[in-house]
Amino acid sequence: MSDFNSVATAFVKFYYDTFDSNRAGLSSLYREESMLSYEGANIRGQVAIVEKLTSLPFTQIRHHIDTFDAQPGLNGSVVVFVTGKLMVDDSPAPLRFCQVFQLVPVPGGQGFFCYNDVFRLVYG
Amino acid sequence: MSDFNSVATAFVKFYYDTFDSNRAGLSSLYREESMLSYEGANIRGQVAIVEKLTSLPFTQIRHHIDTFDAQPGLNGSVVVFVTGKLMVDDSPAPLRFCQVFQLVPVPGGQGFFCYNDVFRLVYG
Repeated sequence: MSDFNSVATAFVKFYYDTFDSNRAGLSSLYREESMLSYEGANIRGQVAIVEKLTSLPFTQIRHHIDTFDAQPGLNGSVVVFVTGKLMVDDSPAPLRFCQVFQLVPVPGGQGFFCYNDVFRLVYG
Repeated sequence: MSDFNSVATAFVKFYYDTFDSNRAGLSSLYREESMLSYEGANIRGQVAIVEKLTSLPFTQIRHHIDTFDAQPGLNGSVVVFVTGKLMVDDSPAPLRFCQVFQLVPVPGGQGFFCYNDVFRLVYG
């Protein structure tokens, strides 16, 4: 079994690097059974999730990770919990966010996919 | 199967009401296999988790929930994601926090227990 901390570390780097450079490239992380809750909107399935992510109303975005935690979940899955800041387009003030993923082993395959994904901005 | 939104709603109310009134009462939510990551400290098992929660250095605390999201997890489990503010003792300024739980059905029993629990304050 992969070490859950290694899985989480590699995932966080890939996810946010890809989000900031080529959101459509996140497609490979989701499957039909994936769920995304984005600021209270609930979306299910790879196609709908990628459509949501690529249609978010900003051109440039940069994530900065402040903390991340990982725990083993059920059946070889990994829970990844991230807090950080994001800078959008020309906005001078960073927005705080937190996000949790549950990564589940691809059935009969290699690697993991996002089964659960919940994102929230944190206002203060 | 219980509806995951109902499970999450009841859990959030019970958890934060109990945290704010009688932290030792959270014991029933954890089992030997439970994990808590609290501000980066990793704790495993019911006894150690309750010891951690009851030894946190404040006398009075009050949680205010700003958002909560729920998703079904694997095998009948429920992912619960909360953001909010907490007031500690006589501190005038609320602290922002976010927390995720994965609730798993009690094996051969009734109800759910906290398998995963990750808590972070959000500064900034």
